[in-house]
Amino acid sequence: MAAAFKLHERLADDTVEVERWSLSRVLLMNDSSYPWLILVPQRPGLRDFHDLADDDLPVMTGEIVRASRLLQDSFQPHKINVAALGNQVPQLHVHVIARFTDDAAWPGPVWGVVPTAPYAEDALEDRLALLRRSSQGA
Amino acid sequence: MAAAFKLHERLADDTVEVERWSLSRVLLMNDSSYPWLILVPQRPGLRDFHDLADDDLPVMTGEIVRASRLLQDSFQPHKINVAALGNQVPQLHVHVIARFTDDAAWPGPVWGVVPTAPYAEDALEDRLALLRRSSQGA
Repeated sequence: MAAAFKLHERLADDTVEVERWSLSRVLLMNDSSYPWLILVPQRPGLRDFHDLADDDLPVMTGEIVRASRLLQDSFQPHKINVAALGNQVPQLHVHVIARFTDDAAWPGPVWGVVPTAPYAEDALEDRLALLRRSSQGA
Repeated sequence: MAAAFKLHERLADDTVEVERWSLSRVLLMNDSSYPWLILVPQRPGLRDFHDLADDDLPVMTGEIVRASRLLQDSFQPHKINVAALGNQVPQLHVHVIARFTDDAAWPGPVWGVVPTAPYAEDALEDRLALLRRSSQGA
């Protein structure tokens, strides 16, 4: 029997689930410094982007574009950053991050620049509601 | 008349051309710290990944996978990093980087960690030859 998909515990700890799309679990990084989504394809055993099955690749690409547009429409950022790094958390996950010219890390990448600033409870609920509403409209 | 594609001068300065694929110009970052390719889709006016035309998206995805496998087969790294950031150079370009657990930036992202270390002339020629040979076999 094939192994089941299970979200890596570090991703589970650092994020809040927004939605589930056909391939990806859509997570909001619990860091109020940047509007930051993480897409995790719900397939067991993936590490690198090129590990995705041929049938899943166009779906993944479509979901990266959908997440990018969701952030663009919701927050009107200056730029969208997309990255599959995974040096620290081996489970394949794709960062989709809205960047502003006045954010804490601009113009560098966001990783490791400022300490994670978790959302206040109300702000988190507001952000999730906004993303879910925008996603339904997309 | 549509504007023609022209490689951004900063990308031209920092890289050496390896090959041209159906969509992307394939560039080697002239930094011997990491085996590092940059794919630049040869379309004018693109900034973000989601700016790619619907017809170009699967081609881009296929070329990212091809570049990843080319690095994997040529260098047997521990991990491949894929990223479209573009905060500093606005022309859409996708980094595909072979990462080793003993490289200068591991486990962080590579950007800005150590000063760029250009290849010696012979080493650059050797690397280009290896990549072109591997690419023909792929």
